[in-house]
Amino acid sequence: MNKTRGLLFVVSAPSGAGKTSLCRAITDSLEGLTHSISYATRKPRPGETDGRDYYFVSPERFQEMIKAGDFAEWAEVHSNLYGTSRRVLDDMIAKGIDVILDIDTQGAKQIKSKYDTAVFIFIMPPSLDILEERLRNRKSDHEDEIRKRMRRAREEIRDYALYDYIVVNRDFDRALAELRSIVMAERCRTRLADTQWIEKLI
Amino acid sequence: MNKTRGLLFVVSAPSGAGKTSLCRAITDSLEGLTHSISYATRKPRPGETDGRDYYFVSPERFQEMIKAGDFAEWAEVHSNLYGTSRRVLDDMIAKGIDVILDIDTQGAKQIKSKYDTAVFIFIMPPSLDILEERLRNRKSDHEDEIRKRMRRAREEIRDYALYDYIVVNRDFDRALAELRSIVMAERCRTRLADTQWIEKLI
Repeated sequence: MNKTRGLLFVVSAPSGAGKTSLCRAITDSLEGLTHSISYATRKPRPGETDGRDYYFVSPERFQEMIKAGDFAEWAEVHSNLYGTSRRVLDDMIAKGIDVILDIDTQGAKQIKSKYDTAVFIFIMPPSLDILEERLRNRKSDHEDEIRKRMRRAREEIRDYALYDYIVVNRDFDRALAELRSIVMAERCRTRLADTQWIEKLI
Repeated sequence: MNKTRGLLFVVSAPSGAGKTSLCRAITDSLEGLTHSISYATRKPRPGETDGRDYYFVSPERFQEMIKAGDFAEWAEVHSNLYGTSRRVLDDMIAKGIDVILDIDTQGAKQIKSKYDTAVFIFIMPPSLDILEERLRNRKSDHEDEIRKRMRRAREEIRDYALYDYIVVNRDFDRALAELRSIVMAERCRTRLADTQWIEKLI
């Protein structure tokens, strides 16, 4: 349909719901869809690479970027700061690339007020017990950190009604298929149709 | 997500765009999705079966059904009458079955005014030349019938803006994948979410 601008997909989920793996799998399996890399002040986890998973920056540098208005959205999560560069995001959209933003509900609210055609997807864990089990299996977090994440998971889920779609990650392949479907369906939206091409048909 | 009511998908397309084959393929490949069988006053085409493709009825019987208010929508197309039984449709939706209604733009407008959560999909031919070629290959229609269908195709396409989604049937498998995606994505809509289940999470 030769759409000229890229679509913006905002994906949120409580930590441990599988958001990062799902977002990676979907950008690998769908053409023309890119994952936006966030800025983060936290330390890299084992296996995480600067410039691939996040741009890891110091809290001081992050504060400078906030002051300069560099962020399309930013949020403090578990005492760490995360943000999306407005310039990088707008450039990708202008080039016609569809972008997945993997951000928390605070960031999602900021995007909602600035990008009125963005599509909002919430990934739900099948249960809070399974969420807690997944967090424990991760083994990188201490007991009090897990409790903090569980409390925050409940807070995030409370905001589900802000989202257009809900994907329950009970089974990874099924959740991925649903996520892919949402992106493919949104690309078929009539408002994105090439009206000049249709005018020529009639 | 345990949704209780079925979804209603309305699919329209100019004759020859591949709507019938696509609708058959999608109900075969997705569980919980059924094709609603229309009433029709025209003669069966070769290969068409009463009760599978259409309920073939006499023009007199059809007029009686109109008078009795039996139709959720009905339309005259190429001097034939087509209609959807309101009772059959409402029963399927009430049972939680998702329904595909394969109807023309006149019928779609009637559904739009009666079923406010219905999802509207327009199947577009890749070009009018290809549409005409497909109609000629069908070989069941005479020259003046083909001209009539081409004129009507342009009229139908003019109503595309009534639809939520546009699927271009350039390649059958791709068009089917897009149609499947639309159904799967719509099933993930937040407004269909089981709020009681979510309340228990938080």
